[in-house]
Amino acid sequence: MKASQFFIATLKEAPADAEVISHKLMMRAGMIKRLGAGIYNYMPMGLRVIRKVEGIIREEMNRAGAVELLMPVVQPAELWQETGRFDKMGPEMMRVKDRHDRDFIIQPTSEEVVTDIARQELRSYKQLPKNFYHIQTKFRDERRPRFGIMRGREFTMKDAYSFDRSPEAAARSYETMFAAYKRIFDRFGLTYRAVAADTGAIGGDLSHEFQVIAQTGEDAIIYCPTSDYAANIELAEAVAPAAPRAEPSAAMVKTLTPGKSTCADVAAFLGLPLTKSLKSLVLATDTRNEQGDIVGSTVWLLLLRGDHEMNEVKVGKIEGLKNGFRFATLAEIDEHFGCKPGYLGPVGLKKPVKIIADRSVAAMSDFCCGANEEDYHLTGVNWGRDLPEPDLVADLRNVVEGDPSPDGRGVLAIERGIEVGHVFYLGTKYSKAMNATFLDETGKPALMEMGCYGIGVTRILGAAIEQGHDARGIIWPDAIAPFTVAICPIGYDRSADVKAAADALHEELQAAGIDAILDDRGERPGAMFADWELIGVPHRVVLSDRGLKEGQVEYQGRRDEAATKVAAAEVVAFVKGRLKA
Amino acid sequence: MKASQFFIATLKEAPADAEVISHKLMMRAGMIKRLGAGIYNYMPMGLRVIRKVEGIIREEMNRAGAVELLMPVVQPAELWQETGRFDKMGPEMMRVKDRHDRDFIIQPTSEEVVTDIARQELRSYKQLPKNFYHIQTKFRDERRPRFGIMRGREFTMKDAYSFDRSPEAAARSYETMFAAYKRIFDRFGLTYRAVAADTGAIGGDLSHEFQVIAQTGEDAIIYCPTSDYAANIELAEAVAPAAPRAEPSAAMVKTLTPGKSTCADVAAFLGLPLTKSLKSLVLATDTRNEQGDIVGSTVWLLLLRGDHEMNEVKVGKIEGLKNGFRFATLAEIDEHFGCKPGYLGPVGLKKPVKIIADRSVAAMSDFCCGANEEDYHLTGVNWGRDLPEPDLVADLRNVVEGDPSPDGRGVLAIERGIEVGHVFYLGTKYSKAMNATFLDETGKPALMEMGCYGIGVTRILGAAIEQGHDARGIIWPDAIAPFTVAICPIGYDRSADVKAAADALHEELQAAGIDAILDDRGERPGAMFADWELIGVPHRVVLSDRGLKEGQVEYQGRRDEAATKVAAAEVVAFVKGRLKA
Repeated sequence: MKASQFFIATLKEAPADAEVISHKLMMRAGMIKRLGAGIYNYMPMGLRVIRKVEGIIREEMNRAGAVELLMPVVQPAELWQETGRFDKMGPEMMRVKDRHDRDFIIQPTSEEVVTDIARQELRSYKQLPKNFYHIQTKFRDERRPRFGIMRGREFTMKDAYSFDRSPEAAARSYETMFAAYKRIFDRFGLTYRAVAADTGAIGGDLSHEFQVIAQTGEDAIIYCPTSDYAANIELAEAVAPAAPRAEPSAAMVKTLTPGKSTCADVAAFLGLPLTKSLKSLVLATDTRNEQGDIVGSTVWLLLLRGDHEMNEVKVGKIEGLKNGFRFATLAEIDEHFGCKPGYLGPVGLKKPVKIIADRSVAAMSDFCCGANEEDYHLTGVNWGRDLPEPDLVADLRNVVEGDPSPDGRGVLAIERGIEVGHVFYLGTKYSKAMNATFLDETGKPALMEMGCYGIGVTRILGAAIEQGHDARGIIWPDAIAPFTVAICPIGYDRSADVKAAADALHEELQAAGIDAILDDRGERPGAMFADWELIGVPHRVVLSDRGLKEGQVEYQGRRDEAATKVAAAEVVAFVKGRLKA
Repeated sequence: MKASQFFIATLKEAPADAEVISHKLMMRAGMIKRLGAGIYNYMPMGLRVIRKVEGIIREEMNRAGAVELLMPVVQPAELWQETGRFDKMGPEMMRVKDRHDRDFIIQPTSEEVVTDIARQELRSYKQLPKNFYHIQTKFRDERRPRFGIMRGREFTMKDAYSFDRSPEAAARSYETMFAAYKRIFDRFGLTYRAVAADTGAIGGDLSHEFQVIAQTGEDAIIYCPTSDYAANIELAEAVAPAAPRAEPSAAMVKTLTPGKSTCADVAAFLGLPLTKSLKSLVLATDTRNEQGDIVGSTVWLLLLRGDHEMNEVKVGKIEGLKNGFRFATLAEIDEHFGCKPGYLGPVGLKKPVKIIADRSVAAMSDFCCGANEEDYHLTGVNWGRDLPEPDLVADLRNVVEGDPSPDGRGVLAIERGIEVGHVFYLGTKYSKAMNATFLDETGKPALMEMGCYGIGVTRILGAAIEQGHDARGIIWPDAIAPFTVAICPIGYDRSADVKAAADALHEELQAAGIDAILDDRGERPGAMFADWELIGVPHRVVLSDRGLKEGQVEYQGRRDEAATKVAAAEVVAFVKGRLKA
């Protein structure tokens, strides 16, 4: 490709509304162009990256035995009504009516349509397993689209769906996809982690997120540097402290703590470590009758160590809290504790509540908690002596750096990631709702076991840039760079030698299957180099009259500190040697 | 590709709602699956064809210097309001509101968005010419979607847009695209014709449709078998008869023609050739004030020869009729002719009307027309003698087979076609509405000259099948067949020799870059052959134990009457020799 036949539109400054570095750099490199909130034109430079990402995904999906098809963007509402998602999905699902006033949706995902295909096409166990995928435009009407294409409204997603005859077979399909995803992300050349994720109501352990590691990532990734353990923060287990609870060594004392209503303030005021203070969270659950009216409420006291945070997903799995919970009202708190928040605790309740303690809390002794009296806390509190053992001990909190790894093989570390892929075992959630059955070996209809597997194609671009950039611009991995090599001739329009050498190199690289762009725009060297560094092309070859007279060209990798002189005759071989396999 | 790893779903019968052969065959071959009215899933077999079509288009567009980008499916209404098309486009443009109640449209085409890109990105004449294209999902909410994917609602289109600094430069861009389209359609391997089309208000002659020839086509294509002339029926000029008008030879006579109100009936009743009868069409135009209220109307009498049909596009170009016309009401007809339709004519009007005669009509003598009296016609009517010469003589009619070619190099023939591509010079229609200017050589802003160039990607599939099929199924051209070669082993699961030979052939063909599918499903030969004939794979190689013992395999082209025995060792070379370049 010659630059003059392509479209290069770099900017000195990013637009003011670009918040994150990937958004800024994509705008400055002319890869995307905003059309509306969360809606972008993919400009030629950006589209090349998308096509390379899609190409790798397609090859590996096909290699894994998945079959590509294409499901429509505009989908009839009927199928979404079958699963109940037409009503359940919030306003992020865009709804539209056709000229006959019939309901349609702009697809945010395609479980319904693919299950409809499967129930018609896959009629016998002999046709299973089957995995259908497509790479298609999706639309999710985010309330606050942001971060450029990282959380846009229109985006491209690869979504695959597997159909199996049994949970065991579905687990094999899952493993096949998991392995394919690892190959895909390996080939992208990105640093990533496959982390275990929560499976929600489905249960089991077949859910993994593929996270591209980046300091700016929205997600906390928990991993053990000395083992394979990796999970997202929702799932990562906080194991019980290894040491048994210490014996009481202090008496329970009520202490004045005027205006100190947070654990941190109280601990500082009293000169106690934060790990000795107790955080009291009051939740409530409602009982409803068949009409949906609230007919009763239960109040729960959740206890966490002062330095820990509640994990909503874990709390949502507690028996009694599974069907939804809320924070208690001030009236409910006053009814049970006789005190306002900030000074609550499990000792001396006005009216009994269910007490659930985090595993760390159950191991605490001589701790400090609210006295259920304004401006007062208790110190030297001990389970069994000053109050009964908790009704339930459970894992209620987010893990923190340094917690023991659940696999017992080290301590946990935390890094930030950007979720770009997800593999998930669906069970019979959709096949049941849509009656997607096949005839098993005995000729009886059975529900298909499903899995779904997504990759945010356009999101990969943002994630790759968050991971790979420097002050000069983007640093693409070889496999997904818009161009692999930039040929930068100095004086292409003035020197016949430079022109001939640059043209020849361009042809040789192309013939070797290396995606090179020849910058024939006649820009000054500084501007030319700045463009390709901003765009992030990983390899650059500079040709000049002076160098060619000495039989040399200059090679510089995008991450290299300085250029390397290479014999002109050997530059193709040299570049090949620098490419990632 | 092995069939067991792919998805093959052929049907014995097409669904009842499939009207045309391409729709029936695509359904039976498992290429598409209906999701809703005019909305289809592209199943794996169909998607392979789409990808090959897209691949050829992409290569040739790039070769022609066009640059690919990707514009969104969901587009903000604002841009469409700038050009006025948000209101002008009828209900076929799907409109949708986002969660903030802002208006969006599902793109039917992308002139507005690409012009918005151009006015921001192309600021200097040095950046011109530029041609941007994308291959993207489109939606048009057709009132009556039909013919499968030939007139669907959601479809894939390649649309390109050129930007130039002058009409002359735009004409060069047009020629470049015209040449690229010829290469694209040549490579598809389809029989097609590039036909001149009407340019509407833009004027000039830069509009061509690319029509795939098929008896079932919706469009009439006019061409001259002895020259290059080709045009669509809207445009094809009906030249004036070469022979001058004959002198009158009969007297004008009023004749009773009871109940005969059509030209055909009257001519048959009177024993006259239809070419001697006159068809009188009464049109009206309205004058409106600034509020849009009708403040006056004009009545026009259009005269055609009895065997000719009115051409609305041509009539719409007549001065006075350019801004729209309608058929006159019965009241208006009575007011001017004093008679009801069926017996109208240009002689003896009650109130004067503007008379416009087709060129053929102006050359008629001794003709027959309505007498403006119920149940009566006049015969032996002659211009100049019985009535004044018409106010205007113009080309008002569709050409018919046998008319002289406008290039004077033969007579016209008519065939049927399916429009799958269109190249069109837009002038400054959009750049003016959206103020898309560039700075010219003198530093002054000037409007960009635009062209647009579309190819209906998914429609190509339907058109190719309408052109290529027989009683057994589809016949794809090599270049866009889902697979080029079907390898059909007889007893793949029983004979180690057959399996080894089939696997080896599969590998050899793949290594030679030939897209082969190995049918390892274990189907009986009859069913296997029927499947690949229905699917339309153009080349088939059959391997059997018996043949292999004699060192032979059987080759059969999809259009061949019978199979050819080929030495097993030479089959790859043989197949290569049978492939279209």
